[in-house]
Amino acid sequence: MYVGKNVNRVDAYDKVTGRARYTEDLIVSNAYTAKILHSTIAHGKVISIDTTEAEKVEGVIKIITCFDVPKHGFPTAGHPWSTDPSNQDKADRRLLNEHVRYYGDDIAVVIAKDEIACKQALELIVVEYEEYETIFDPVESLKEGKIQIHEDSPNNIIGHSKNIRGNFAEAIKEDGLIVVEGWYETPIVQHCHIENHIAYAYEEAGKIVVIASTQIPHIVRRICGQALDIPWGKVRIIKPYIGGGFGNKQDALYEPLCAFLTTQVGGHPVKLESSREETFVSSRTRHSMKFHIVSYIREDGSFAARKIEIYSGNGGYASHGHSVAGKCLGCFHQLYPCENIEGDAYTVYTNLPVAGAMRGYGIPQAMFAGESHIDDIAKVLGRDPLEYRLQTIMPKGYEDGFSKNVNYEDSFRECLKVGMEAIDYNKKVEEYKNQSGNIRRGIGTAVFWYNTGVYPISLESSSCRMVLNQDGSIQVQLGETEIGQGADTAFSQMTADAVGLRLKDVHIISTQDTDVTPFGLGAYASRQTYMASFAITKTAKILRDKIIERAYQLTNVTPHNLNIVGGKIIRKTDGKEFMTLGELATRTLYRPEDSEYITAESTYTIKNNAYSFGCSFAEVEVDISLGKVKILRLINVHDCGNLINPRLAEAQVHGGMSMAIGFALSEELKFNEKGRILNNNLLDYKLSTTMDHPELEVYFIENPEPTSPFKTKSLGEPPTCSPAPAIRNAVLNATGIGVNQCPLTPHVLYPLFKEAGLIDNQLEVE
Amino acid sequence: MYVGKNVNRVDAYDKVTGRARYTEDLIVSNAYTAKILHSTIAHGKVISIDTTEAEKVEGVIKIITCFDVPKHGFPTAGHPWSTDPSNQDKADRRLLNEHVRYYGDDIAVVIAKDEIACKQALELIVVEYEEYETIFDPVESLKEGKIQIHEDSPNNIIGHSKNIRGNFAEAIKEDGLIVVEGWYETPIVQHCHIENHIAYAYEEAGKIVVIASTQIPHIVRRICGQALDIPWGKVRIIKPYIGGGFGNKQDALYEPLCAFLTTQVGGHPVKLESSREETFVSSRTRHSMKFHIVSYIREDGSFAARKIEIYSGNGGYASHGHSVAGKCLGCFHQLYPCENIEGDAYTVYTNLPVAGAMRGYGIPQAMFAGESHIDDIAKVLGRDPLEYRLQTIMPKGYEDGFSKNVNYEDSFRECLKVGMEAIDYNKKVEEYKNQSGNIRRGIGTAVFWYNTGVYPISLESSSCRMVLNQDGSIQVQLGETEIGQGADTAFSQMTADAVGLRLKDVHIISTQDTDVTPFGLGAYASRQTYMASFAITKTAKILRDKIIERAYQLTNVTPHNLNIVGGKIIRKTDGKEFMTLGELATRTLYRPEDSEYITAESTYTIKNNAYSFGCSFAEVEVDISLGKVKILRLINVHDCGNLINPRLAEAQVHGGMSMAIGFALSEELKFNEKGRILNNNLLDYKLSTTMDHPELEVYFIENPEPTSPFKTKSLGEPPTCSPAPAIRNAVLNATGIGVNQCPLTPHVLYPLFKEAGLIDNQLEVE
Repeated sequence: MYVGKNVNRVDAYDKVTGRARYTEDLIVSNAYTAKILHSTIAHGKVISIDTTEAEKVEGVIKIITCFDVPKHGFPTAGHPWSTDPSNQDKADRRLLNEHVRYYGDDIAVVIAKDEIACKQALELIVVEYEEYETIFDPVESLKEGKIQIHEDSPNNIIGHSKNIRGNFAEAIKEDGLIVVEGWYETPIVQHCHIENHIAYAYEEAGKIVVIASTQIPHIVRRICGQALDIPWGKVRIIKPYIGGGFGNKQDALYEPLCAFLTTQVGGHPVKLESSREETFVSSRTRHSMKFHIVSYIREDGSFAARKIEIYSGNGGYASHGHSVAGKCLGCFHQLYPCENIEGDAYTVYTNLPVAGAMRGYGIPQAMFAGESHIDDIAKVLGRDPLEYRLQTIMPKGYEDGFSKNVNYEDSFRECLKVGMEAIDYNKKVEEYKNQSGNIRRGIGTAVFWYNTGVYPISLESSSCRMVLNQDGSIQVQLGETEIGQGADTAFSQMTADAVGLRLKDVHIISTQDTDVTPFGLGAYASRQTYMASFAITKTAKILRDKIIERAYQLTNVTPHNLNIVGGKIIRKTDGKEFMTLGELATRTLYRPEDSEYITAESTYTIKNNAYSFGCSFAEVEVDISLGKVKILRLINVHDCGNLINPRLAEAQVHGGMSMAIGFALSEELKFNEKGRILNNNLLDYKLSTTMDHPELEVYFIENPEPTSPFKTKSLGEPPTCSPAPAIRNAVLNATGIGVNQCPLTPHVLYPLFKEAGLIDNQLEVE
Repeated sequence: MYVGKNVNRVDAYDKVTGRARYTEDLIVSNAYTAKILHSTIAHGKVISIDTTEAEKVEGVIKIITCFDVPKHGFPTAGHPWSTDPSNQDKADRRLLNEHVRYYGDDIAVVIAKDEIACKQALELIVVEYEEYETIFDPVESLKEGKIQIHEDSPNNIIGHSKNIRGNFAEAIKEDGLIVVEGWYETPIVQHCHIENHIAYAYEEAGKIVVIASTQIPHIVRRICGQALDIPWGKVRIIKPYIGGGFGNKQDALYEPLCAFLTTQVGGHPVKLESSREETFVSSRTRHSMKFHIVSYIREDGSFAARKIEIYSGNGGYASHGHSVAGKCLGCFHQLYPCENIEGDAYTVYTNLPVAGAMRGYGIPQAMFAGESHIDDIAKVLGRDPLEYRLQTIMPKGYEDGFSKNVNYEDSFRECLKVGMEAIDYNKKVEEYKNQSGNIRRGIGTAVFWYNTGVYPISLESSSCRMVLNQDGSIQVQLGETEIGQGADTAFSQMTADAVGLRLKDVHIISTQDTDVTPFGLGAYASRQTYMASFAITKTAKILRDKIIERAYQLTNVTPHNLNIVGGKIIRKTDGKEFMTLGELATRTLYRPEDSEYITAESTYTIKNNAYSFGCSFAEVEVDISLGKVKILRLINVHDCGNLINPRLAEAQVHGGMSMAIGFALSEELKFNEKGRILNNNLLDYKLSTTMDHPELEVYFIENPEPTSPFKTKSLGEPPTCSPAPAIRNAVLNATGIGVNQCPLTPHVLYPLFKEAGLIDNQLEVE
């Protein structure tokens, strides 16, 4: 059995030797290069574009402007299609936009023989704009009388959802309630995957082929079809290895535009690659959000009622629309069950870069607000925040009414107890009481839950194909994608066990090609290992049945007494080995009287979801006068069910923790008053690096997930969710100051510390 | 219905615009180039190779010699594997050879950054040989006391088969028999496909990937596995569009070597492309053959007995081995049934380039001999050769004991009568009687039969996969290959009809990728349309059943009353249209409660073969003093069953006729006394071109083939089989001279005409 073992990544050798092939590696040498002209205003209308001089640049093939593209909108979100129009994503995007809605919007494209010609031409294009009022803040954007960024969205609202439970108005009348209220705010951050977005398109065999760095090839196919208004079967998407995505490549970014461009040059190959600077502005970001939380607490600490307002700034286009803020809103009543809730979430257009999916999909923001607020309550109540959580958090057996997810074990408390022991919580709390001086230490915790996939909101299905080779090895094809996270390795382990193979005889086809790869939705919602496991198990069963039927013909042993173990056909009763799978495959394929190429293919529709749980513990040291936070220890504890590959799971958590550290302490996109970005590069944008990390400590509680064939559930996004509030709460513990916005930079901390009188004026002057 | 219609080729647009991608178009820019060092002796042993100076050339990466490669043999023939060792091809080839067996054998390879460095290095390699005796003639090679070219092949015999029927020795004692005896000889020719052989290999995901211009990707995978002694599943072959093959690419040519080379440079991409000069010598050729035929004829023209001896020169390696000559031998008793036959066919090693498969697979040679011989008999009997054929040729209802092929209709006579009328045979025969002078005209005919595929000699199976897209279009994958002949178009037409689609909604996947393409044997033996039709029909049935089951769920109309017509679900009883296939596919795929990605895949084992028939009529004008033959008219008549695409069928026949004209009149490889080729280029090798062609006239008899779902049978190779003897017989008709060797060049004709006294000596002196 391979599931549960620390097998090496199946792509390790190719990736460390550099021979793994990414989109860039597949581009033919005579491909044209395309570069986009981005708007230099944040809101307005393109009146005219003069390309006369630009077209004279040697090597320029064609210039396409916003006046040359189809006039219909299409959506970009990487969600499954829905046959119910009310469930479809907002189709507010065009290939190029006359009405520009953020500084960096796409208004024209130069196609040229090389990048130099493109850049020369871009500089010679003259654009005339009509400028409109700009709005950068989502709360402002909602207000009456503001300019409407999209014609069909009054008050700039992309989505508004309510979460009403019980009777809030009555509940708050209860005597003796303690009211804790807070506003919390999170920044716009960017995914910063290593490989910027790149697509490469050409026409062939009556189709537009797009090779792209995407998480969602089958969805991108559909969106390209929509964008170009052609039948979806006329589009073929190929996804090779990609250098990270983190949700940014869960949108159709420039694949539709690239697909369109090749049609404008007779199907000649065209490459469209974003620079790092463009990636920061013109791909997607994490939503900045403002949370207003009011909790009505009884003296025993229990929740009588809660009010939650969420304002999510989505930038100039809808992308994933209201799904992210909607998911945030759904957190609160589940995490700390409360019978009376009044919640509102608004997703709002602004004139900033477009927010979309990013690892955690709103939960890092919700946890920053919600878990900060829990510590704020504990402080008001004079309770230890950990002990307070152990009292109030989701109980064992809790079932969510919507997703039908069940907390089968007492996972939260189990996780919290592991973390508590690991960090020696009680001792530290004692030790850090009553500190003074400039350097102070603190300890903090925070929890999260996460779903596994998107059921029942939208389609969850996975298809798989297995192909038996003459040597007994198999190819496995899935629409679920390797995006650096190690999915291919997990798929291979599960396949080996499900079929009865040696791991080395499983050849996972990493590249998705929508023409031949079974339909799958791709990498998002931490769905892949869970969802694929159903299709793998079902398909393996079909394959095994075919193999065993053939083995029966060859051995005359009844099928129910035959098994496939380690790539061999054995008799169950005595373990006798009859032949290798290779021998069986060869004899079956080359049998002139009855040849069979043994393959299996099936679709599994997944009609469940699964709760993942976890928590973080942070220990920090705060230099008060510098407003600087140093993380001494950071621990993540996860219950993601049984682990498929503990070492890969740990690596996954490390990555998420690193991303969360940046979110907590350093990362944010900055804009000037015109909406122009100030730090769209990796020098000025302070991505967290190993220099900022303590040793990242990871623990797992392996409560087997009953809905899953391999007892596993989501781990992709969960690690990003709780470290930031744990760090914030540790700073609170160290300093007494609850910081209600992240990142906790010196710019934020210093004024707060100063206001609180923690900073010695004398020291400051020196 | 599309079958039977002149639809445009599905690859026409891409091919005429030049955007169709061939192997060369897929090579990444940083690939290494490899070039082969060929032996400069025809037979001997490499004693040493000094690469010291060559390695100093800038850009040289590595030099591999015959001393560095695995020491085991492998076969190269593109035949299906057989689990019966006695049925397997001769494994007499190594990646590079110490024992060189023809002038041009492969002894070392330079891998360098570019071709220039390769060539510089090749010139600096110093090779020391021990030279052996050389043998160039197959009859000589058989003789006792000759040097043995391969250690395990006494008398240099690759294969010897006998065809003994009845009692020859008794039969020839019959009184009054007329004996007609002749020796006939055919040349070595080359396929001259436009695209030379090219392969491009790299390592990825634990596999060796080879992109190659081949007709037989799945077979090449197996052979690469054998050559490198690795599991076959570790090899992945990708076949894009190719620029012709004609049987030459029905061998594993340099794919195994290229696969090996990439393993020697850490999996880096390596390109190995043959030049035209190399293609002539170091790929494969058509077997030169010598036939000795003795016919014992009764006065009424019927055959009492026949003796046939065939000597086939195979060159230095076995390649397809004895199959070709074996097929020749099997012709004679079928074409003109005769109860007493004594036949021997020998395939023999010589020290010339290796003969392998070439369009017609021995039948053009057999027909040149056999049909020349029929005219020789007619001449002896004083009969009209056409009338004589109509008497003696295979009758309606004839069944071959081995292949079980049946001549269901009186196809030969039907074809001959069509040709006869088209060329106005009787009038011409009368007109060309009693000619004199230097310019004389004549008319000739010849027939052929051909099989469809290789059943029952080896495996015939075809697998197919169909994938339904959301727009109701489908992808079709087959292991049968488009090699320029239009197979993809025929497959698309059959698929459209079998499923019930519009042709434009059939997307044939032209590229085979052995990792994901269903197993198929590839393009050879004129098998593809016939064999694929079974797999297409079977797979379409599975796909239709799935679709109709879903349609039933959506309409509540019982499945037996539903049909798919023109991409729509209709009710059979009244033709009511319920929905398009696209609507059905979309609703099925995006159904959260029960999603299905509708695909179908199956293997069909073909256990029949099918006789194709036909004939050629030629009218020529001979300039006797110049020994020059001009073809005035050339007509091919074919019964290849029902036509899938008449226009493509006609094009196929045109190509075959052109190839046959070269074979008849101009093409042959020439060697000096050391076995070195003299004309390995398209200037000195006289390929037939349109300038040498009359208008090529094509007629079809469409006798429906009862074994085939679409009533079709082979047409790929047949057109090459009969024109050469028809031309030869026309020359005989014109001049009275039966020329027993081809090509009928002035070098051959002049001495014969002279000897026969046809040439005025005076004229000659002038």
